[in-house]
Amino acid sequence: MSQDDFDQLCAYARETAILQSIAELLGWDERTKMPPAAGDFRAEQMTYLSSLVHRRQTDPKVGDWLDKLAASDLASDPHSDAGATIRQMRREYDKLKKLPQSLVEELTRASVLGQQAWVEARKNDDFATFAPILERIVELKRRQADAIGFTECPYDALLDDFEPGETTSNVARILEGLRSELVPLVAAIADSARKPDLEILKRRYAIDKQEAFGKQAAAAIGFDFNRGRLDVTHHPFCAGMGPNDCRLTTRYDERFFPSGFFSILHEAGHGIYDQGLRADQYGLPPGTFVSLGIHESQSRMWENMVGRSQPFWRHFFPQAQQVFPDALRGTTLEEFCFAANDVRPSLIRVEADEATYNLHIIIRFELEQALINDGLAIKDLPSAWNEKYREYLGITPPSDADGVLQDVHWSAALIGYFPTYALGNLYAAQFYAQAARDVGPFDDHFERGEFSSLLGWLREKIHRQGQCYAARELVENVTGSPLSHDALIAYLREKYTGYYGIS
Amino acid sequence: MSQDDFDQLCAYARETAILQSIAELLGWDERTKMPPAAGDFRAEQMTYLSSLVHRRQTDPKVGDWLDKLAASDLASDPHSDAGATIRQMRREYDKLKKLPQSLVEELTRASVLGQQAWVEARKNDDFATFAPILERIVELKRRQADAIGFTECPYDALLDDFEPGETTSNVARILEGLRSELVPLVAAIADSARKPDLEILKRRYAIDKQEAFGKQAAAAIGFDFNRGRLDVTHHPFCAGMGPNDCRLTTRYDERFFPSGFFSILHEAGHGIYDQGLRADQYGLPPGTFVSLGIHESQSRMWENMVGRSQPFWRHFFPQAQQVFPDALRGTTLEEFCFAANDVRPSLIRVEADEATYNLHIIIRFELEQALINDGLAIKDLPSAWNEKYREYLGITPPSDADGVLQDVHWSAALIGYFPTYALGNLYAAQFYAQAARDVGPFDDHFERGEFSSLLGWLREKIHRQGQCYAARELVENVTGSPLSHDALIAYLREKYTGYYGIS
Repeated sequence: MSQDDFDQLCAYARETAILQSIAELLGWDERTKMPPAAGDFRAEQMTYLSSLVHRRQTDPKVGDWLDKLAASDLASDPHSDAGATIRQMRREYDKLKKLPQSLVEELTRASVLGQQAWVEARKNDDFATFAPILERIVELKRRQADAIGFTECPYDALLDDFEPGETTSNVARILEGLRSELVPLVAAIADSARKPDLEILKRRYAIDKQEAFGKQAAAAIGFDFNRGRLDVTHHPFCAGMGPNDCRLTTRYDERFFPSGFFSILHEAGHGIYDQGLRADQYGLPPGTFVSLGIHESQSRMWENMVGRSQPFWRHFFPQAQQVFPDALRGTTLEEFCFAANDVRPSLIRVEADEATYNLHIIIRFELEQALINDGLAIKDLPSAWNEKYREYLGITPPSDADGVLQDVHWSAALIGYFPTYALGNLYAAQFYAQAARDVGPFDDHFERGEFSSLLGWLREKIHRQGQCYAARELVENVTGSPLSHDALIAYLREKYTGYYGIS
Repeated sequence: MSQDDFDQLCAYARETAILQSIAELLGWDERTKMPPAAGDFRAEQMTYLSSLVHRRQTDPKVGDWLDKLAASDLASDPHSDAGATIRQMRREYDKLKKLPQSLVEELTRASVLGQQAWVEARKNDDFATFAPILERIVELKRRQADAIGFTECPYDALLDDFEPGETTSNVARILEGLRSELVPLVAAIADSARKPDLEILKRRYAIDKQEAFGKQAAAAIGFDFNRGRLDVTHHPFCAGMGPNDCRLTTRYDERFFPSGFFSILHEAGHGIYDQGLRADQYGLPPGTFVSLGIHESQSRMWENMVGRSQPFWRHFFPQAQQVFPDALRGTTLEEFCFAANDVRPSLIRVEADEATYNLHIIIRFELEQALINDGLAIKDLPSAWNEKYREYLGITPPSDADGVLQDVHWSAALIGYFPTYALGNLYAAQFYAQAARDVGPFDDHFERGEFSSLLGWLREKIHRQGQCYAARELVENVTGSPLSHDALIAYLREKYTGYYGIS
């Protein structure tokens, strides 16, 4: 009997996943192919699909199936496929049911208005016109936290949307540890007399050749173009829209090689995770990524730990020299890699290097907690932002446009999302160190253009686990230790000590 | 009260249209962008959407609304927006309700199996392996005709799916008239000693330049790229997926200029019709194309009557010579146009010229009637096919692969579709002659690169009429006469008398 209920629940969830996969295609198309004038109708299509999905996800029969399955044998092992399915679907159902429909609609509306206001405010460097809608969004997010419920602080309820099962206090503890070591490290790098020659990266790199070279590298590290593709967009992203359909996007700058190439590696890292999920469990928790932080760990590992390493370029640099002879003639591998690993405090998160990036995130995470938990007034947000940039990065934004207004997230009612970026870097370093212990060291592999030892380890340890374990459990299972900042700091220290000659 | 019912009916129909527009996007993506391995899941997505659409279209509440509206004032003028909406939705609802679900499923299944068998059979030139599934499809289509009902012959019920309100006997009468004049005309052209130099078209035309030149021409005749786009595919098509989202596709042959260019003009003709439909009536009959034949008339008019005319090329040929200097240096406008208007009997419909094309269609139309109405045995189909090719075109297919197996339509259970291609040519000629009387002659306009006089006439007379009149009524309203073969024959005679020196 339980098996019948379970099969019905799964069939129902798979149909819902079909609608969600279609929504993904619409979103991808909107950002890559859609004609300019088609936006209004696309919004109608997306809204209609969202309503169909939401109606299905909150249908009482889902609750009935879950009630009947709660005490069944199928639910007894929470880490089995069936157990994880029942647990995760219960979690999702209860959470959606706790949110009043009116609040969902108010949040959707505030998010649309917020993004419109943000575009204008950023363009005009005018925080004051954005403040009222941001105030409204923060108020709605507090109401969301109250509706969902929390143990320690309201921010927990928001963080859980993106990093399920994680707590504010745990993330804060880890990021504070990271910050305390990162701030002096970044300062020491900034003080170093050694600097890379960035001009190397700003020579002419023809866009069609960048595309071909980037695709070749993405395929080499394991992205399957038979089950995916690569297109151009303004803000790179990766979208999965079926078990064999994962699409990467990037943007090219003819005069800045890293822009296109490292975005491709980053998105390919996301795509490799997506392609490593179990197709037979598509649309069900065992075939779904575990958290945004774990997703980001895969993109960051391939982009940075692999893609910015010298062994990687010992394989690819001779090819790059053939593809871009005018740009790279006379440049050494070491000069090129140093340029690709340039560290310097900067204003804009999305352009930040691997080391300072985490400080951008820590600032946002601390300010989000202040807004949600501690009642920081919106009017005081710009000065709080600038103060933290001065303290952690030693720079002060000359304008709100390049400061507190730079990111879309808050305007889109995404609060609790930012920390997953830093968690991604932390997970990546801890996983990578463990992988090197288990199947590495990788230097010789990468130098030969072999990435399958790392890929195979990730497939088994992470991708094929789906949501059978929460992110925190997964890290402990795979590395034997809870998440800490140690591996990331060790990795950064080792890398930059060499380049910058710091101690 | 009626207004309430009507508004609810329209809101419901618009939601259904949203799902249909999403299915169009999925279909477009499948044929232009989708990764190779994603086909199975795409089929699941399409099947699921189709079932949602079918369930909505046959929902009893649609019937209830229509029953309540039948005697209302809103329905009193069948050509008003409301009247046409009620009439056409009644038509669709009744028709769908007459088809047993089991038959729909059997047809879908037979169509999938049929296309698979067809691909193999064509590749192996083996009609015998295709015969059983084709026999099954014909049997199911006869059952479909019986379920729908008909007055004169079963084929009427099938034709109605593609050319609503048209009858077999009327189409047969017109196409027989056309055939009786076309067969001797084509024979006279074949006997003429004058032949164009086709080598002109087979020089090297770089594909990126073909694309840019084709887009420029499509935009010049009126296709709005702000509301549409152009991509590459294997079999060109045009797909509308929203009031401001219409997508053309083509394929390029570097060594055959007409392949890409005239496909672009053809699909742009379809797209211009789609873009001329009333956006405020999107998803409702007044904002929907009237029939496949009328749709084809728009593509054929722009492709052939406009795009293969000398006035058109008096504007575009100098530009073409600049874009393709090596290919067109030393070629005259007249030589180029003669080559683009080459007429010769050939085996393959999709490669046929403007004159012989209609004979390919007449053959298929006659054979379809024989299959559906007169019990022609499948085993006798190849010889019947070859006999008609000999009789009408003076050639005999050397193989079934290049004969009876060349088209996908029958394998996909599309029977009754072919005649709309010839109807398109007939409508196009009759409309074009009338437009020239009303707002022409067009020669000077085209030569100056002005296409708005013809476009404006089509917008008013055809595009903005939607389904307020059936195709037969529309032709009479616009041209003052019922459809006949006179205008098309007059047009072809005039054109080819000049080129081929026939009397």
